Amino acid sequence: MFKAAETGTKLSDAAFRAARDQLRFDLVELQQRCRQVAGFPIIIVLAGVQGAGVVDSLNLLNTWMDPRWIHTHAIDRPSDEERERPLFWRYWRSLPAAGNIGLYLDGWYGEAFAKKGGAPHLRDIKAFERTLTDDGALIVKIWLHLTAAQQKRKPDTHQLDPVFGFRASDATWPQPAPYGAFVATAAKALKATHTDAAPWHVINGHDDNHRRATLLTILRDAMENHRKAWRTKAKAAAKEIRQAVKAHKKRKGVTSLAGPLSKVDLSKTMSAAAYAKAFRPRQDRLYDLQKQAHAAGVSTVIAFEGWDAAGKGGAIRRVTYALSARNYEVVPIAAPNDEERAHHYLWRFWRHLGRAGHMTLFDRTWYGRVLVERVDRFITDGAWKRAYKEINEFEKQLADHGTLLVKFWLHIDAGEQLKRFKERRDTPYKRWKLTDDDWHNRGKRALYEAAVNEMLTRTSTTHAPWHVVPANDKQCARIMILDVTIKALERALKQRKSR
Amino acid sequence: MFKAAETGTKLSDAAFRAARDQLRFDLVELQQRCRQVAGFPIIIVLAGVQGAGVVDSLNLLNTWMDPRWIHTHAIDRPSDEERERPLFWRYWRSLPAAGNIGLYLDGWYGEAFAKKGGAPHLRDIKAFERTLTDDGALIVKIWLHLTAAQQKRKPDTHQLDPVFGFRASDATWPQPAPYGAFVATAAKALKATHTDAAPWHVINGHDDNHRRATLLTILRDAMENHRKAWRTKAKAAAKEIRQAVKAHKKRKGVTSLAGPLSKVDLSKTMSAAAYAKAFRPRQDRLYDLQKQAHAAGVSTVIAFEGWDAAGKGGAIRRVTYALSARNYEVVPIAAPNDEERAHHYLWRFWRHLGRAGHMTLFDRTWYGRVLVERVDRFITDGAWKRAYKEINEFEKQLADHGTLLVKFWLHIDAGEQLKRFKERRDTPYKRWKLTDDDWHNRGKRALYEAAVNEMLTRTSTTHAPWHVVPANDKQCARIMILDVTIKALERALKQRKSR
Repeated sequence: MFKAAETGTKLSDAAFRAARDQLRFDLVELQQRCRQVAGFPIIIVLAGVQGAGVVDSLNLLNTWMDPRWIHTHAIDRPSDEERERPLFWRYWRSLPAAGNIGLYLDGWYGEAFAKKGGAPHLRDIKAFERTLTDDGALIVKIWLHLTAAQQKRKPDTHQLDPVFGFRASDATWPQPAPYGAFVATAAKALKATHTDAAPWHVINGHDDNHRRATLLTILRDAMENHRKAWRTKAKAAAKEIRQAVKAHKKRKGVTSLAGPLSKVDLSKTMSAAAYAKAFRPRQDRLYDLQKQAHAAGVSTVIAFEGWDAAGKGGAIRRVTYALSARNYEVVPIAAPNDEERAHHYLWRFWRHLGRAGHMTLFDRTWYGRVLVERVDRFITDGAWKRAYKEINEFEKQLADHGTLLVKFWLHIDAGEQLKRFKERRDTPYKRWKLTDDDWHNRGKRALYEAAVNEMLTRTSTTHAPWHVVPANDKQCARIMILDVTIKALERALKQRKSR
Repeated sequence: MFKAAETGTKLSDAAFRAARDQLRFDLVELQQRCRQVAGFPIIIVLAGVQGAGVVDSLNLLNTWMDPRWIHTHAIDRPSDEERERPLFWRYWRSLPAAGNIGLYLDGWYGEAFAKKGGAPHLRDIKAFERTLTDDGALIVKIWLHLTAAQQKRKPDTHQLDPVFGFRASDATWPQPAPYGAFVATAAKALKATHTDAAPWHVINGHDDNHRRATLLTILRDAMENHRKAWRTKAKAAAKEIRQAVKAHKKRKGVTSLAGPLSKVDLSKTMSAAAYAKAFRPRQDRLYDLQKQAHAAGVSTVIAFEGWDAAGKGGAIRRVTYALSARNYEVVPIAAPNDEERAHHYLWRFWRHLGRAGHMTLFDRTWYGRVLVERVDRFITDGAWKRAYKEINEFEKQLADHGTLLVKFWLHIDAGEQLKRFKERRDTPYKRWKLTDDDWHNRGKRALYEAAVNEMLTRTSTTHAPWHVVPANDKQCARIMILDVTIKALERALKQRKSR
């Protein structure tokens, strides 16, 4: 990995001076252009051996670029809020918005370089970076290298740089292991995470001029190429979406494919008496389990999806009625705000993950990506098709952290839905529940059925299976939801104890 | 405080049924209207003695209103991220956006009810609530009461409500002291925080029907009255601003008043050699102090304000060059995004406060409220006039927490500014620094001078004095900024040690 960078290449002061003004101009110009397009975030990871110029590079970039749109992140010891959430929560929460630059010291590699975490963690890193680059992010990863001899020869650089005046090195920047071991571990990590979309650039850091010129050139070229490629892709995507919308308008009589939904038995009903009898003990049980989960630090995420008027809100309330109010949050998902829109679509769900022992109920979820965004053509085919994998990876991270995830699809047929729409329309205090969107979506039932069937098939995993709830009868649905949640919590608590 | 609510008033089932549908309709309708206006947040604080129906009320409101715009907050033990910031950080971060409802169990009164904190804390609560209501927020505070006898007679309500099906009480909801002591402490807290703008409503909680009907009526009336009053105020504010803008256009030749700025000596200069000699030891000292502050958990906030082109960015960089990159953040303040705009203007500054031992450098600050927002007439006279007090209170909270705050106004004269504007215009890689806004602001120099003078006079406090930096000579300015920061850090570290 580092062979090519084990050189002593130097650049004369004169050559550096000749190049630097143009580089500076280009970088600032590109930063402004990327900012104006605001189509993608720029993520720069800086890492390397001690004395190779990591801090110098950081200061150089902060000096030359517009500091309003560049944010430096030196990931410190995790806070308890971070430790109580899945590993990557702290990185997700720090991601730059589109048009901005995030500058990361060591990035999400700190543990990998220190040889904590190992192979599965590297897989998570790759998935994380792929998720971001697939969404359009530019990731530039720089490794600043020195040979063992160069590191030894390197004078104490804990001083201010004579050209720029900033601190060229930083004594508080520890290298976690002796040179040989550290470099060997790092080489493995770099090799495993060196991808086409997020490659590592290795630069010899011995000579200041050479290192700076190389770093700036790599960054300049990466930004320029990415900006062009992004524009082309954005145009193609817009075109694809326009054509798909047009094609859809011409098409009539879409029929839904057979799939999990066609097998749901919607005929079961439950008497009011049977419901009343079943309801109380389940709510009491759930209350007890919530208390236990809080004490054990088991976090729960319950995802509610389903047809409009399928009874998501009512079902959520029947769950929350049972709970202690101190420990749950209901997160209703509506259209994203502009801060959310400027991030990856999963960002706002990461953002809402609760602390240890907390219960979070999502009223609609990240599955909007493969439902409304697919059906209403907000995104390209490529975007929703790869979302299955991204979602599965996201949910796997929840599971790896020990977070319990329970997913419900509330199913009603078209006739029942119409009946409920009319009831909402005719009941004054329910009228707000019915919007034009509901009627619009109803007209696309067949398209939605295809999307739901594919979603259920492709994202039912061992650690996060879907529970399809027959919901024509609200009482049956609510009892089933309580039962499934209770069983899942019991299992999660048992697993936590056996850890 | 509680005398009037020590009754046994009851409401019959029939009377409650007769009222409830109208109440429900009104509340939902009002919620939607407030949502559409999106002009102010609604903050509901629920508290009371055990068994009086706090949890019941919470569930009732969550049941009847649109859950997408109502967020429940049961403030749990503080996280380390919260403990490492001023007391009210956790409340600020949870505030609802305009158009939304925040429902708080105990609100920010938990410590006051438990008799922790005492009188000065109650003063902070009052200031917090006044800051929010002055900005247009609706705050409704409900205390649910029982007499000692009623609390004893009250059957075990750890059960589900027969009408609504939700949990009417919550065994995990502890009352922190025996009845008498608890009620006495609470009465004091309520009395001290009962204001015209954020009054307490005390309801006897003994009878479910009476309590629910009263609560819902209070809330309905508060929302309706507030909505109307807000509309009137918003119209008046818009009119005031329109007229002020018109009047200003007619007026010519505004002359600036004498004030702190007129006393600044801008004549001092420093030779390059003297600067070079002075610079290095100060950067080294600052680096050491940053390390000490990090170890001691002393957080620092450095606020940079000044004329356009006064050298804020350059000065910030000269400070950060000295620092370890792991421990500081530069927060540039530009126009707020829509999430920020939907909150109190101080919200986005609270949001950026760093953890223990962290250093945060603001490039422009909360003083925008009394500078650009005043001069460009974004807000009414009343709004910027009360901002001095709000800002002083905000800074006092930083000081009370032990956060070091250093504030700089970088001063240059009009001639020097013009010279720098021209230089920016003519240097390719500096061109991005100069915008139309800069020329626009320059045309309002006299108005700005008046605003700056008033700001310096009214917000220079013992715990957060302004440092006016003569900045016609950049080198003098940078050395002074380093000196002031070093001295302030030394003093803060000494104080921390003597604690």
